[in-house]
Parts: sequence; structure tokens; C-alpha cells
Amino acid sequence: MSAKRAPAQHRLKSGWARAFAPATVSNVAVGFDLLGYPFGKVGDEVMVWSWDRPGVHVEQVRGGRCEVPLDARRNTGAIALAAMVRELGLPGGFGIRIKKGIPMGSGMGGSAASAVGAVVALNALLAKPLKPEALIPFALKGEAAASGGQHADNIVPSLLGGLRLCLGLALGGAVDEAGAWPEVPVPARVRSVLVHPELVVETRAARALLKPQIFLAEHVRQNACMAGFLSACASGDLELLSRSMMDLIVEPQRMALIPGFEKVKQAALAAGALGCSISGSGPSVFAWTPSDIVASRVERAMVAVFREQGLAVESWRGPIERKGARVIARGRGVPK
Amino acid sequence: MSAKRAPAQHRLKSGWARAFAPATVSNVAVGFDLLGYPFGKVGDEVMVWSWDRPGVHVEQVRGGRCEVPLDARRNTGAIALAAMVRELGLPGGFGIRIKKGIPMGSGMGGSAASAVGAVVALNALLAKPLKPEALIPFALKGEAAASGGQHADNIVPSLLGGLRLCLGLALGGAVDEAGAWPEVPVPARVRSVLVHPELVVETRAARALLKPQIFLAEHVRQNACMAGFLSACASGDLELLSRSMMDLIVEPQRMALIPGFEKVKQAALAAGALGCSISGSGPSVFAWTPSDIVASRVERAMVAVFREQGLAVESWRGPIERKGARVIARGRGVPK
Repeated sequence: MSAKRAPAQHRLKSGWARAFAPATVSNVAVGFDLLGYPFGKVGDEVMVWSWDRPGVHVEQVRGGRCEVPLDARRNTGAIALAAMVRELGLPGGFGIRIKKGIPMGSGMGGSAASAVGAVVALNALLAKPLKPEALIPFALKGEAAASGGQHADNIVPSLLGGLRLCLGLALGGAVDEAGAWPEVPVPARVRSVLVHPELVVETRAARALLKPQIFLAEHVRQNACMAGFLSACASGDLELLSRSMMDLIVEPQRMALIPGFEKVKQAALAAGALGCSISGSGPSVFAWTPSDIVASRVERAMVAVFREQGLAVESWRGPIERKGARVIARGRGVPK
Repeated sequence: MSAKRAPAQHRLKSGWARAFAPATVSNVAVGFDLLGYPFGKVGDEVMVWSWDRPGVHVEQVRGGRCEVPLDARRNTGAIALAAMVRELGLPGGFGIRIKKGIPMGSGMGGSAASAVGAVVALNALLAKPLKPEALIPFALKGEAAASGGQHADNIVPSLLGGLRLCLGLALGGAVDEAGAWPEVPVPARVRSVLVHPELVVETRAARALLKPQIFLAEHVRQNACMAGFLSACASGDLELLSRSMMDLIVEPQRMALIPGFEKVKQAALAAGALGCSISGSGPSVFAWTPSDIVASRVERAMVAVFREQGLAVESWRGPIERKGARVIARGRGVPK
């Protein structure tokens, strides 16, 4: 389809663009595979440029504390970029350089952020950039390469910002429209804490260990958690939010992958957290708190317990950000 | 506990009170065991009075087109009444008379309405009436006798009115507080249609046929339906509401109990319904529509299909009512 349309609609500007795509907390206790939000204090930077060399070429990957594939067929940023180039019928070739701020295998949406950064950077090189939600299908292709299936709950919040219900894949229908990814309002006082213990959990492995079936009664209770959480977010009822913010199905099956998880959670709740669970497929752990002051207390408590387990830890805290990926630099020619 | 408190706090006024408790649509496609709303064009009327005769005595049950137990140990209204009398330590005895507007075994919350009507009527006889949500535990005891377990998704909307998330039992915590039963805002244009084909489905049987386990992937999709539905109710996005309003788990297992269900649903959707599913455990079927005009078209279409199946049908339509059970008459002495 694009071969005909592209020359008219998708002319390229010359030069390069660099985009920042935030880390994300997905699942968010109540919404396995359905809910996520960005954490902009950490993220990946992706630079993309057009040149004469054909195809998509990964020139450099820095950071990530773990091997990120330079092979363009295995790198999530390059796969997303190639999908967009192909679909839009863009001429010439593209180079991509990734600076990973997000540790690999941390449960913080690193593979999604690289994919999102790549398509946002390329979008900035289009004479007529697409609306952000139109980039989702391309970024999903990159993410699928990492997790072994299409999951939108890191891609969408990293791209669009905000706490997002990622319904597009679950309910069917168009995935490149904003209506498939409604933003959930979050009470303004809420602050989130994110703690990353330095060990690696592989997404595919964390997914493979889940039992394929659950009891109907478990489904009803977990559905109640989702419903209570959304209702509480809308009304600002933090007491209900706290009682709802539970993962009864996935967390119990995955927590053994994270040394000390139960103690970390206990410490977070004892320090005043509204809820605490695994970020994505772990090992990072997040908590929600009712204020800045409580957030800093919760962060210290969680970090202390992980350290007692002999783990190195990094941690962040902040509000639930409504801002997603963005272009942070532009330039002419091919970058040095 | 009440023996000490009751004499001071719960003095009785003499005379009788009659309460109306509306029928209810529960489950509402997306929220099995968790969601319900009242349908005030149909309901039960319950009259309660105090007299010297000890205990709770069911004097009369009219309507219901099916035998309603006069035995106070099996009648949901009498059981709820007795639970309230006992808990509050009320002196003397009570008579109860029930006029059933809700057909028995219709999936329209008939047993819940009788229980709710009874406690609302008795509440009006207290010198200091309790707040409505404090009546929930008593009404639940009546409902449990009918369905074989405590389910709040008919009781709470019949008592409090509005589309209610019935989280109190699923999440734990106090069930006699309003926060356990948040009201979901419904877009003002929405009209509901309720169609009752004249056959009886027994709640316990409809519950017993459900498979005890479901696939994790089914849970995720159904959770997405609940989330999309709540998000759409909050934002007024009727397109998302329509895509979300699905029961992927219970409806497919129960629809065989309702002759022609699939054709009725198809007809409703073809006539413009946003969604259509089984009311409670059936056989009644409800639909949501985006306007009055569409509601009347949908009602006609659904009724026509049931009649083609050779079934007698009654039907109603109206907005999602925010008003629940209420006292409709008061008098002195013992009623004639």
C-alpha cells in the first residue's frame, strides 16, 4: 500500500534526530498485560539519521549493563525502525545509535523504550510527522522481538505518557488510535517509587513460568482489584486505591525470582505505601505512595531491605508523568 | 454485642412501613459477581410491622408467578429481617407481607429485592434509622439463602441505587460502608432494555454449571473489558463502551439455558445496542443503548426474537436509575 502513497506523503527531511523514551512500570499490580506508566527519570536515548547506505544499521549501543544486540534483526529499536521505514516506503537507508539508560532485563520496559525512541526519532525526520498513536504498530513490532509476543503495556505509556489502559490488543480494533489506549487519571498527590535490584530476569522466562489457568474465583477477585483501582483513581479515594492495588495472580508466581521480594513489599507497606508490586516481569519493584514525604520514606525502606539481601540497588521516585517520549535534539547531516 | 447497645440506640416506633425495592441487572456483561444496577419499573413491595407475636412471621406472599416460601427460615425477606432484628436486639416480634413484582428465577434479582425491601421497611420503624449501607450485611444474609453464597451485586444496587461496583466482599474489609460499593457514573444518554422470557433458571444451577477454571489469557481479556467499560463510562466514549461490554467467560457457558439467546443478542446489536448480555443468571436479557429511540427499537427486536422461540415475554426500558429502595407508605397499628 505504501509504495504508492509514500512519495507524496512521507518525504524525508535530511539530518538526524535524537529522541528520549522513558522507562515504564507495566502491569501495575492490577492490570497484567493491560496497564503501564512512564518513569521519566530513567530512559533510553535513540538517535536516527538518514544516509545513502541501504537498510537499517545499528551503529552503536551504549549502556544497559548487559549485551544489547547490534544485529539489526534482533535489536528492538532497529526492528521498530525497519517496520516504519518499510510501511511508509521511505527512501534510502537509516543509521541508529542507542544510549541505554534503562538496564536490560530490569522489568522497566527497556526493550520497549528503545523501540519507541527509534520511531519517535524517525518521525521527526518526516516532512509531515505522524500523530504519536500512529507510531504504535511499528514500536509493537520491535517489542514483540524481545518479549516473544505483542504487548503494549510498556510501548504505549512510554510513547504517549500517562497511566495507560492498554486495551488495543485485548479488545481488538485499530491499535493506531488514541481511543484504544485511554489514560487513567491519577490523584495528584500520588508519588511512585521504583527500585531496581541489580539482577536480570528474562521476560520470556518470567512469562513461561505462569500457569496457563486460574480459578474463576481468582479472576473475580482480580477483576475487582482492577475495578476498585480505576474507581479509586477517578474518585481520589486513596483508601480504596490501597485496598485494590493487588496482584493476586501473577505476583505470587513470579516473586520467587526476586530475592527478598516479600520483605521489600512488607517494608514498603509498613512505611506507608498504598501498594507495592513487581514492575513488569521484574526484578524491579514499584510502590505507590500518598505524598512526596511518604515516597522518600518508602524508597529508603525498600532499598534497605534489598541491600540486606546483598543486592546492589538503584532507585527513583516521582509523580505519575503525563509526558511520554520526545525529541530532545536535532541536527543536519550525518552525526559524528 | 447488641444486647447492651440496643435498648438505648434502637428503640422502635409502633406501626408498619412498606418499602419498594427495585429489580436489578447484575453481572452487566463485564463484571461477573461485581456489578449491578436497579431497574425501578419492576420491584418487590415489602410491608413490615411490629407486634406482640414473637419471632418473624411471613403473613403473605403475593405475585412472583412461582412459589415463594412462606417458611420464615427459607424466605429471603424474612431471613434478612430476622438477621437485623437479632443484630440490633429489637424487642417483640415482626410480621412481613411481600408483594412480588419480580418474577422468581428471572435473573432480575428477585430474592435480593425481597431482602432489601424487608430491611428498608424495618429501618423506617427504628426511632433512629441506620444509614442505608449499614443495612447491607442483613440483606446479604437473606440473599445467601437463595443463591447459596453471599453475593452483593443485586443487593447493593437495589438498596443504594446506581450502577454499583460491588467490591466489598471481593476485596475484604467492612461491607457496611459506602466506600466498598462505589457508584460508576453512566453517560446520561444511555438507556437500558430488560427483557424477561417466561421460563425459570435456578441461580444455584446456573452457578454450578460454570467451569471452575479459566485460561489466564481469558482473564486478561475479560479484565480489559471491565477496564474499558469503566474508562468509557467515565469519559463518555460510547464506542469504547460498546467494544468493552462483553462477557467472554460466563455468558458462553450459560447461554444454552436461554432458548434463542444468540439470536436475541444479534438482533439487539443489529438494532443499535451498545452491548447485550444475560441479566444475572438469566433467563432475562438486558441491553444498553445510546438513546431512547434506539432503546425502543432494540426492545422490539429482542421481544420479537423471543416470541419466535414460542416464549411469552415482558420487557421494560429506561435510564440507569440512581435511586434505590425506598419507603412508600407508613401507618399506625397492625395492618389489615
